[in-house]
Amino acid sequence: MSQWDIRHVIHDLQQVRHDWRESQHRIKEFGGRELPSKEALKEILNDLCGVLFPMRLGPSELRQESEDYYIAYTLDRVLNHLYRQITLTLNYESKRLNLQQNHLHQQELAQQIVQNFADELPNIRRLLDADVLAAFDGDPAARNVDEVLICYPGIFAIIYHRIAHQLFKHVPLISRIISEIAHSATGIDIHPGAKIGKGFFIDHGTGVVIGETCIIGEKVRIYQAVTLGAKRFEIDDQGLLKKDYARHPIVEDDVVIYAGATILGRVTIGKGSTIGGNVWLTHDVEPYSQILQSHSQQKSNHSAI
Amino acid sequence: MSQWDIRHVIHDLQQVRHDWRESQHRIKEFGGRELPSKEALKEILNDLCGVLFPMRLGPSELRQESEDYYIAYTLDRVLNHLYRQITLTLNYESKRLNLQQNHLHQQELAQQIVQNFADELPNIRRLLDADVLAAFDGDPAARNVDEVLICYPGIFAIIYHRIAHQLFKHVPLISRIISEIAHSATGIDIHPGAKIGKGFFIDHGTGVVIGETCIIGEKVRIYQAVTLGAKRFEIDDQGLLKKDYARHPIVEDDVVIYAGATILGRVTIGKGSTIGGNVWLTHDVEPYSQILQSHSQQKSNHSAI
Amino acid sequence: MSQWDIRHVIHDLQQVRHDWRESQHRIKEFGGRELPSKEALKEILNDLCGVLFPMRLGPSELRQESEDYYIAYTLDRVLNHLYRQITLTLNYESKRLNLQQNHLHQQELAQQIVQNFADELPNIRRLLDADVLAAFDGDPAARNVDEVLICYPGIFAIIYHRIAHQLFKHVPLISRIISEIAHSATGIDIHPGAKIGKGFFIDHGTGVVIGETCIIGEKVRIYQAVTLGAKRFEIDDQGLLKKDYARHPIVEDDVVIYAGATILGRVTIGKGSTIGGNVWLTHDVEPYSQILQSHSQQKSNHSAI
Amino acid sequence: MSQWDIRHVIHDLQQVRHDWRESQHRIKEFGGRELPSKEALKEILNDLCGVLFPMRLGPSELRQESEDYYIAYTLDRVLNHLYRQITLTLNYESKRLNLQQNHLHQQELAQQIVQNFADELPNIRRLLDADVLAAFDGDPAARNVDEVLICYPGIFAIIYHRIAHQLFKHVPLISRIISEIAHSATGIDIHPGAKIGKGFFIDHGTGVVIGETCIIGEKVRIYQAVTLGAKRFEIDDQGLLKKDYARHPIVEDDVVIYAGATILGRVTIGKGSTIGGNVWLTHDVEPYSQILQSHSQQKSNHSAI
Amino acid sequence: MSQWDIRHVIHDLQQVRHDWRESQHRIKEFGGRELPSKEALKEILNDLCGVLFPMRLGPSELRQESEDYYIAYTLDRVLNHLYRQITLTLNYESKRLNLQQNHLHQQELAQQIVQNFADELPNIRRLLDADVLAAFDGDPAARNVDEVLICYPGIFAIIYHRIAHQLFKHVPLISRIISEIAHSATGIDIHPGAKIGKGFFIDHGTGVVIGETCIIGEKVRIYQAVTLGAKRFEIDDQGLLKKDYARHPIVEDDVVIYAGATILGRVTIGKGSTIGGNVWLTHDVEPYSQILQSHSQQKSNHSAI
Amino acid sequence: MSQWDIRHVIHDLQQVRHDWRESQHRIKEFGGRELPSKEALKEILNDLCGVLFPMRLGPSELRQESEDYYIAYTLDRVLNHLYRQITLTLNYESKRLNLQQNHLHQQELAQQIVQNFADELPNIRRLLDADVLAAFDGDPAARNVDEVLICYPGIFAIIYHRIAHQLFKHVPLISRIISEIAHSATGIDIHPGAKIGKGFFIDHGTGVVIGETCIIGEKVRIYQAVTLGAKRFEIDDQGLLKKDYARHPIVEDDVVIYAGATILGRVTIGKGSTIGGNVWLTHDVEPYSQILQSHSQQKSNHSAI
Repeated sequence: MSQWDIRHVIHDLQQVRHDWRESQHRIKEFGGRELPSKEALKEILNDLCGVLFPMRLGPSELRQESEDYYIAYTLDRVLNHLYRQITLTLNYESKRLNLQQNHLHQQELAQQIVQNFADELPNIRRLLDADVLAAFDGDPAARNVDEVLICYPGIFAIIYHRIAHQLFKHVPLISRIISEIAHSATGIDIHPGAKIGKGFFIDHGTGVVIGETCIIGEKVRIYQAVTLGAKRFEIDDQGLLKKDYARHPIVEDDVVIYAGATILGRVTIGKGSTIGGNVWLTHDVEPYSQILQSHSQQKSNHSAI
Repeated sequence: MSQWDIRHVIHDLQQVRHDWRESQHRIKEFGGRELPSKEALKEILNDLCGVLFPMRLGPSELRQESEDYYIAYTLDRVLNHLYRQITLTLNYESKRLNLQQNHLHQQELAQQIVQNFADELPNIRRLLDADVLAAFDGDPAARNVDEVLICYPGIFAIIYHRIAHQLFKHVPLISRIISEIAHSATGIDIHPGAKIGKGFFIDHGTGVVIGETCIIGEKVRIYQAVTLGAKRFEIDDQGLLKKDYARHPIVEDDVVIYAGATILGRVTIGKGSTIGGNVWLTHDVEPYSQILQSHSQQKSNHSAI
Repeated sequence: MSQWDIRHVIHDLQQVRHDWRESQHRIKEFGGRELPSKEALKEILNDLCGVLFPMRLGPSELRQESEDYYIAYTLDRVLNHLYRQITLTLNYESKRLNLQQNHLHQQELAQQIVQNFADELPNIRRLLDADVLAAFDGDPAARNVDEVLICYPGIFAIIYHRIAHQLFKHVPLISRIISEIAHSATGIDIHPGAKIGKGFFIDHGTGVVIGETCIIGEKVRIYQAVTLGAKRFEIDDQGLLKKDYARHPIVEDDVVIYAGATILGRVTIGKGSTIGGNVWLTHDVEPYSQILQSHSQQKSNHSAI
Repeated sequence: MSQWDIRHVIHDLQQVRHDWRESQHRIKEFGGRELPSKEALKEILNDLCGVLFPMRLGPSELRQESEDYYIAYTLDRVLNHLYRQITLTLNYESKRLNLQQNHLHQQELAQQIVQNFADELPNIRRLLDADVLAAFDGDPAARNVDEVLICYPGIFAIIYHRIAHQLFKHVPLISRIISEIAHSATGIDIHPGAKIGKGFFIDHGTGVVIGETCIIGEKVRIYQAVTLGAKRFEIDDQGLLKKDYARHPIVEDDVVIYAGATILGRVTIGKGSTIGGNVWLTHDVEPYSQILQSHSQQKSNHSAI
Repeated sequence: MSQWDIRHVIHDLQQVRHDWRESQHRIKEFGGRELPSKEALKEILNDLCGVLFPMRLGPSELRQESEDYYIAYTLDRVLNHLYRQITLTLNYESKRLNLQQNHLHQQELAQQIVQNFADELPNIRRLLDADVLAAFDGDPAARNVDEVLICYPGIFAIIYHRIAHQLFKHVPLISRIISEIAHSATGIDIHPGAKIGKGFFIDHGTGVVIGETCIIGEKVRIYQAVTLGAKRFEIDDQGLLKKDYARHPIVEDDVVIYAGATILGRVTIGKGSTIGGNVWLTHDVEPYSQILQSHSQQKSNHSAI
Repeated sequence: MSQWDIRHVIHDLQQVRHDWRESQHRIKEFGGRELPSKEALKEILNDLCGVLFPMRLGPSELRQESEDYYIAYTLDRVLNHLYRQITLTLNYESKRLNLQQNHLHQQELAQQIVQNFADELPNIRRLLDADVLAAFDGDPAARNVDEVLICYPGIFAIIYHRIAHQLFKHVPLISRIISEIAHSATGIDIHPGAKIGKGFFIDHGTGVVIGETCIIGEKVRIYQAVTLGAKRFEIDDQGLLKKDYARHPIVEDDVVIYAGATILGRVTIGKGSTIGGNVWLTHDVEPYSQILQSHSQQKSNHSAI
């Protein structure tokens, strides 16, 4: 007998799992786990960062003469790893939806997704180069572009987002895990569905939330604690939340949004506008507008707060 | 002699430590470290997540047929590890308080704490299942319950909180370390003393602060950057901070609190109420209220911000 | 041939890197990487924490009798590691600025920086002891000073800041990486250039931003989501951002700034003042002021938000 | 271009591999590796040692109260790992022999092999207990049975052998890898095909060689550098080595063979016999014989050797 | 139910363990493991090698300027580790012998053993320096003394032996584990009880066996596969093996023993003698003798072997 | 003060090191370690095995389609690592010999050595393919060529030897470390200086010793415990050992040497000869000879041994 009396705990946990699976119609469960692995995806993203920026985010001993060897081997390997996670995920999704399993089709689809993803990597790098330049240009504290790439949480978040976004259409679960890895590391929460133009810069970043159906133009700059969220949730005829409809802001080119601003709903912030700190905004804004919060404050010595 | 001239540094550090220990009345210090270890607690929490959700947070190679073997071994092992950390902590606390050391009593107490904790695990799992369903029901972006469990920072935070809360009464130091592990990973800061009902959901979560004496009902939903804090700190007769009195809000069932709202003091938010984004609230709210911030803004093109 | 068609991807990535390097005037690139390594700095900071607080942040098996052995060896080793990172960084900086490389001079400079840094460690420890006491005194939830040291994110952030600040003048890139390690772990973003007096306490901390040219006095206390930022960025004659001028607040001794307050520009918050939660402040405040936000709210049952 | 001129090396290595594969009729090679992994087998054997002797070769923190939990989980897990290696091996063998692939059949066969192996584990433990006692009884330097189990290379070798032998019939490649792991660790080379009775003891052991078709009775004791080998290799009609025929000694119960003795061919060493050190033996020996080497030596001072 | 039918296996293993423990009079077993750990001892020996030869076997990044810091910290730490293993072992031994447990006495004894061991380290280093010089002087293939120290298995074995021998009197089980670590790495099997004078050199070494009661003088040189063993085992009145009596050779100063020689029993090899390869020797040898094997061989073309 | 009284130990160890360095004329020692690292060389050899046999000794997840990517990256990387170890070694050697340091020359020399080594790799692979076939052809227990490559210690030893031999001329210290890694793993001790023709096979192998100046032809096969050694060591005019002269056997093509045979001195074993087990041989042997040991034995029941 164990020092700890755990038999009843094991039994009760069994019962809770049983209840859960029954409530989720999963009594006949899979043999092995078919969810993608967060740890595997962390490694995949690390390798992809090395492929995209070999001399700055690759292995510290890498020499420039060997860049292409490193990239070829790492890219080939990381695509195999990604393929495995995608296959797991497609399997899981079709089981969850009680679709008839067609492994051959799933494998072909996974291959297609991976190859398309690989083809997009040079474009992703181009976008990210523009993001780095935008950060350097937009922050008086930035000393050089390499500091921006290796230090700035906003850059970390956008690298992960651009990768996650590329995978979002076919394997949203994987994208979501990737974006939460970045969220945990940076405090910046960008839904992988959001569309973001080039030259995007988030400074400081903690508390930023960018929703699933956001559309952000080029050269947009935002600061910490900015929310681009949904105004309210629509309910369908059965009283359930409607999912999958456009409910987050459109932010046009060259907009700047200062810290703590909250923009909610499918509104459009016109090109070149500036949204002040802590502004609360739920309607459209014309191009080249400047929106400020009215800051009425009382100042009183000796009064308690 | 060393390349670095460090003898005086070592000496000066000795002196500073001496001063510190003297100021803290600890000149006669312990032999070895008696503080619990953050690294050990991280592993314990990982194992507990596997025990609670074996096929989703357990080892990726686990098969459902082997669940109970895995749970029995892991639970037994993790309780031993927890027992060791608790024994360290009880020791530390009694030394700190200059209590007479009674190792036998401490061991019995530690055993009791661990066994009670084990007995509560099935209940904790049931609460967490309700939390997962609440998240799925409350977020239009959620695709399925497994995505919620493995991705959402709010779920991570509540798993850690429910475990920390269970240990809070007897070993608050351990609870506090656990809650800070979750805070660091998610940006969500829930004090382990807070009482939280089932079906709790925090969306996005970065910047949420929930204070020690909060009482939160069932099916409450809150968003990023919400503070449930103390209004002001009371001072006792010697001019020192009063500790350990009810100073944080009571939030009743079915309340929703939107992003950035700040609720301070021992106020009660009545059942079914909705608190709007960025609202600043220091008084009670009747059931089924809706509290909005007045958003007066100036809009002016061409003006500087 | 590979399962994946990656030859064109490799080629296109080559082209993007070429374009980037050309745009950055770096076609004749270095052989090996010359950027400091985030992983190396993480280990260095861990070791420095052990040197500063051996019995609380050092190896868990350490005994007090062996403290000085541990400190001597670890300090010597960590200074060598730091020296290597600093040498890399000085090299990188002089290449980036197209300075004539003078390795001998760089090594002497690196040695000087490291020795000075070592000499400052006892002072840093003294400052941190005061910070720990300030946290204990300022938080009713704090049970003892050791809990504060090992749990509180605000303490983690200030340890890293005081180390980073010491290195900021000569190797800002390294300082910046250190401060981003702390930012990622705590959600607290303190620029390594900020000057902070002793007895500094940040509670909860997520979302705090403290800018490069801030000057903060003694015994200042701030809460989560406080911003001490720049009001606007000045543009020089060529239309580029001016860098390196005083643009962040001065906060005098004994000031308390509550959660969510935003203070922008080179303003001075006078000694002993209290800034209320969510206050937006862009002007000087006299000593012993209390600044509150006017909280006009509409309360309406049954209305939608 | 690389610092190293490796293109021609890569090309030439390609050519050599091509030549090899052509010579081995393997131009159409498998996609992935299908050989069992030595590293995986090392872990499997470690786990099996823990299952067989939990309190002596299991994890050092294991408590006796938890033995069965540990065994159940570890056994289940290790059988899954073994199943995977066996499946790989069966696949490989059928490809190598150009058999038609029948994955379903292979999986069933692998399951059968693994289940049979599991069923035999208690018998293996019984045999090993007898081996440990034999070692303790036979070595004046042995202080207790636990020292024998955890220190003696002869025990290590026989544990690995009894496991490898059990798998030899169906997956000889895996058995061979296991026996070479033991050979490398101990210098004792026992072919997994050898049949060895209970109570077997090898002292010191370095240089012992026991051939594939040996049959060894109960309570046999042998010393370092003993060879139980084949006398000569038979050639078949095509001039190739005959494989798979009985060509090694039969050693009956209670035989002792001293260090350096060499016994070659299908000879029988009768029950209870003693073979002296360095004896060279190629013929049968009657029961209860004592075979000594004639040691003629010259002794001469001052002569060179 | 598991994929594998393992319940009966677990049950049968229980039964075998029960039978074993009953036969060994251990039904009332300890709670936790009380055997020393081979892995822990491997680390301890690694650290001791670093303490003895810091610039050659210590950490590769060590600088000579920091030697003493490294040694002080490592020695202090390794003595603590050794103390723990010795305490475990003394406990185990007293339980095994059913001695009354006296923890206080055991701790004092363990402290005494460890301190004495530490005091002997400089002498051990002196002996090893002489061993290294002897190897360099005795091997025409040796290029320099550092090559000898870091490459030669004979040096590895003698380092481990001199450490094991120092611990042999009080904790023979630990010594035995240490000597088997060296045996596994080198094929050289020196019983920790053997007394070996300075300037000892074993070349090649595989298959060397040196028994428990050997006494070896100064400047002795031996080659691979030499056995210094017991001639026969004496039986006591109950028919059991006699243990603990002098049964292995005495080898006086300046003796050379060539490869494969076997010397058995309590014989004395007189000072300055040379024993030829493969010689079998069971009697005393006068000083300055040269013993050769008579090598009668048949040479015959065309005959089979 | 430490629990352990180690100050005098540290001091005495200092003194011993001082004495050693003085005796070795090294009082003015190097700053950092300049000896090659065994751990680094282990990794280098692992990588080289992968480069030579990617699908059998490379990473287990490698796919044949990706072989060349893997090889290019790994080869480039491993050559850089080897270059570093060679540079260290050349430095060390020139300091040891008090040569004037010429870093530029050493770097060029190191580059030359590494490039030549890379150029030889395809030839090494060809030789090893022949070795594998020889093992398969020569062992009735061998089931297929892949088993031979991944299991046989003789193959492991010859892979390491062919690599070490290639480096022997310029960096003998590195070669020696490599050959001792193989010796430790296999019990086979081949000096890196030995010249060995293709199709070489060592069966079982434990105890084999092959000396520095051996010359071995093609298709030679040897068994465990064979020694190809020096007969006696020559002394020069100063009474020191002569180093670097031909003192080991020449073994011509197609020779077979059975277990335990000892062949000493610069003798020639003629083509196609067979040397029987345990033979002791110190003279030339004509081609196609068969040398057997005369095995005179006494057989006597009931007599003691």
